[in-house]
Amino acid sequence: MAILQYLEDTRPLPSLWPSDPLQRARVREICETVVSGIQPLQNVGLKKYFSSADQFQTFAQTIAQRGLQTLEELLKNSSGGKYCVGDQLTAADICFVPQIFNAAGRLEYALLDGCALYDITQSYSQAQALRPWAGPHRPDAASELSVTDVVTTSGADG
Amino acid sequence: MAILQYLEDTRPLPSLWPSDPLQRARVREICETVVSGIQPLQNVGLKKYFSSADQFQTFAQTIAQRGLQTLEELLKNSSGGKYCVGDQLTAADICFVPQIFNAAGRLEYALLDGCALYDITQSYSQAQALRPWAGPHRPDAASELSVTDVVTTSGADG
Repeated sequence: MAILQYLEDTRPLPSLWPSDPLQRARVREICETVVSGIQPLQNVGLKKYFSSADQFQTFAQTIAQRGLQTLEELLKNSSGGKYCVGDQLTAADICFVPQIFNAAGRLEYALLDGCALYDITQSYSQAQALRPWAGPHRPDAASELSVTDVVTTSGADG
Repeated sequence: MAILQYLEDTRPLPSLWPSDPLQRARVREICETVVSGIQPLQNVGLKKYFSSADQFQTFAQTIAQRGLQTLEELLKNSSGGKYCVGDQLTAADICFVPQIFNAAGRLEYALLDGCALYDITQSYSQAQALRPWAGPHRPDAASELSVTDVVTTSGADG
């Protein structure tokens, strides 16, 4: 977050933050839900503090599920567009994308068609700015899943 | 963090952020160390995921110690003044103060005289802006510890 904001302060275009203060707060709300409410709590470095790998995995999955449910509620209020907050790619999307990859991959959490989380990941697969990064479009990542693949094929229940 | 920045965007004076981009990044580095690196991981709501209260307490203390060591290193680089980043009270101090109270109180972590963490908490006890909040100066908190009390009397080792 410090680096993201430093880049904005020193290289303001293209901006990763909306100009409206309330929309900026919506962006930060999503960012902090990820970087404080989910990421630190499912970091693999925590595994050693639990009695077993299974106990940690259950913990991490529970945390991720709780966090994604929170994000779903935030996105319903903040989006109304293609991305996390409107039609502009923002810092919220920068935080959201790796968390979705991680949740759908390592934590085997399924996104359901029709939820806001799912709809936004669909938008990412169409975003030119994300194409060099998203799975098969990255030359060294031919074997990785794209966002679209992840949200349609993964899931703890199948 | 979203609320802190929203207040800055809509009520910019007095500012909680330095004007220099690098100093602003130092502030955010400290804020995020607290709100992502310490606070979520020692929240009492996590206790139910551990096998025992002792296992959780050990985990929370380890996390707090790791986090405070990180803060100590950051403060050595960023302060050079009375507070977390120079002589201006910033968002870093807003995040730092409750974490120090919590670490010294519930987590029984001792601050040593001479460390940067200790020196800064000493400055807080002199800060007029913090007096209504800090322990005995708050009318409804006569029985609570002030920052000065906490850093000089608490500690896991006695």
